[in-house]
Amino acid sequence: MFDLAEWTTARRALVDEALGPCVAHGWPSSFVEAVRYPVFGGGKRVRPLLALAAAEAVGAAPSCALAAACAVEMVHTYSLVHDDLPCMDDDAERRGRPTSHIVHGEAVALLAGDALLTEAFGVLARADLSAETRVELVRLLSAAAGADGMVGGQVGDVTWGSAGTDLQALQAVHVRKTGALIRSAVEMGAVSAGASSEARAALVAYGQAVGLAFQLADDVLDADEDDGDEGPPSYVRLLGVEETGRRARALADEACAAVAGLAAPEALVALARFTVERDV
Amino acid sequence: MFDLAEWTTARRALVDEALGPCVAHGWPSSFVEAVRYPVFGGGKRVRPLLALAAAEAVGAAPSCALAAACAVEMVHTYSLVHDDLPCMDDDAERRGRPTSHIVHGEAVALLAGDALLTEAFGVLARADLSAETRVELVRLLSAAAGADGMVGGQVGDVTWGSAGTDLQALQAVHVRKTGALIRSAVEMGAVSAGASSEARAALVAYGQAVGLAFQLADDVLDADEDDGDEGPPSYVRLLGVEETGRRARALADEACAAVAGLAAPEALVALARFTVERDV
Repeated sequence: MFDLAEWTTARRALVDEALGPCVAHGWPSSFVEAVRYPVFGGGKRVRPLLALAAAEAVGAAPSCALAAACAVEMVHTYSLVHDDLPCMDDDAERRGRPTSHIVHGEAVALLAGDALLTEAFGVLARADLSAETRVELVRLLSAAAGADGMVGGQVGDVTWGSAGTDLQALQAVHVRKTGALIRSAVEMGAVSAGASSEARAALVAYGQAVGLAFQLADDVLDADEDDGDEGPPSYVRLLGVEETGRRARALADEACAAVAGLAAPEALVALARFTVERDV
Repeated sequence: MFDLAEWTTARRALVDEALGPCVAHGWPSSFVEAVRYPVFGGGKRVRPLLALAAAEAVGAAPSCALAAACAVEMVHTYSLVHDDLPCMDDDAERRGRPTSHIVHGEAVALLAGDALLTEAFGVLARADLSAETRVELVRLLSAAAGADGMVGGQVGDVTWGSAGTDLQALQAVHVRKTGALIRSAVEMGAVSAGASSEARAALVAYGQAVGLAFQLADDVLDADEDDGDEGPPSYVRLLGVEETGRRARALADEACAAVAGLAAPEALVALARFTVERDV
């Protein structure tokens, strides 16, 4: 019986240990704390865990995917810092703490986000992997986080409604805003592990399904909180809580089926199940 | 006699042609224009020209350094877009046009900057160069633009005074804020061209001196405009116009001496002279 809690605790410790040196430098020295603050703020490390689990699924040691895991988490963190800024969502609190711009001011928060994004690519460039592998990781992260990916999804979120307000329009935003980086976390884990092209394709299919399931499950959780009457459009508003939950579980099934043939898919399977069954 | 105007016109055309496809994609389609707007806004292309000139100085074709040139210009452009935001310098106009956030709104301008920074690394990852060369370019750009480099310099600018207000403090900001990216443009040109380690060291020395000369010359130009009585600290305020100009010319001499032994330093020499003699 695979113990997800035990696996997760051990892998989170690996990730946190590896993230430390990634955000230990900067100038002036006071800026280092502004860069570290959002990185060590109680994040669940979903994307790093997926990267490590993907590497382990093809029989590799999780350590080979730590650079990819850290880079993806740094990009995820920068996106939260910028998303919380007054000109975006204007959020004063995240995970029970004041957001970066509340603590360090808007200008320094903006720059801390810029630094995290920039340094993420440096982490990949310095990884203990072949040059071919490192360059492929840079390409994948740039594509997932860039104008066609996560940033595009955030633009769609900000300009919501200009491209329709139906399920297709909502999905077009979420495939990019949250889906692209989650999918790339899995694929970057596969690439770090030197996965075969068949295994890589299976892992991409998994990442795609889990990325969307994650957003559906998030919408269900948010609906439980505030009944879904206010705020931005969501799957729950368009489909109802039950149908959204049903679709999330179906996507998790699809994800698990995609990786069933891999050497050690246990962690991936447990993570996909947890994604749609979690209550936080 | 080397004709800098002719050389510059031809090289700018190469750079603009190469930049087009770098910023031709994005989602939603309306976002593409927001990404392109600051890139094609009358920039002088100083950094791309330096990258191409560095490659040519060691006998390579300028085309080998076009990916580096485009990536550096995209990073420079993102830094201007973020620098102009209300929470930073709050500038409504740049180069005679309204700034990005005036035209596209703060949120989309922030995201356009994020996209340019992210895509710059994708341009390097896809370059027609060896994997080793591409990964070295990513490493150099991340270091120059990151928390110890350009972003750090901007933090120093924003929090000016906390580390002193003397010449040493001013130089510590400018070495990072403008110097690091200019230096990396030259070094990335050298790496793209496969320069020997001796030639690369000479080009780094050139880039370092020109980067600082550029800032000194800028301060002299700004002083001519407004007499230097208001605004942020500058070399002119601390040294006077004449001494600042003298130091800029001395740095240009130093830069030219560093590359005198290379195969074809003419463009670099002319660019260094132009940097300190320009009136725009």
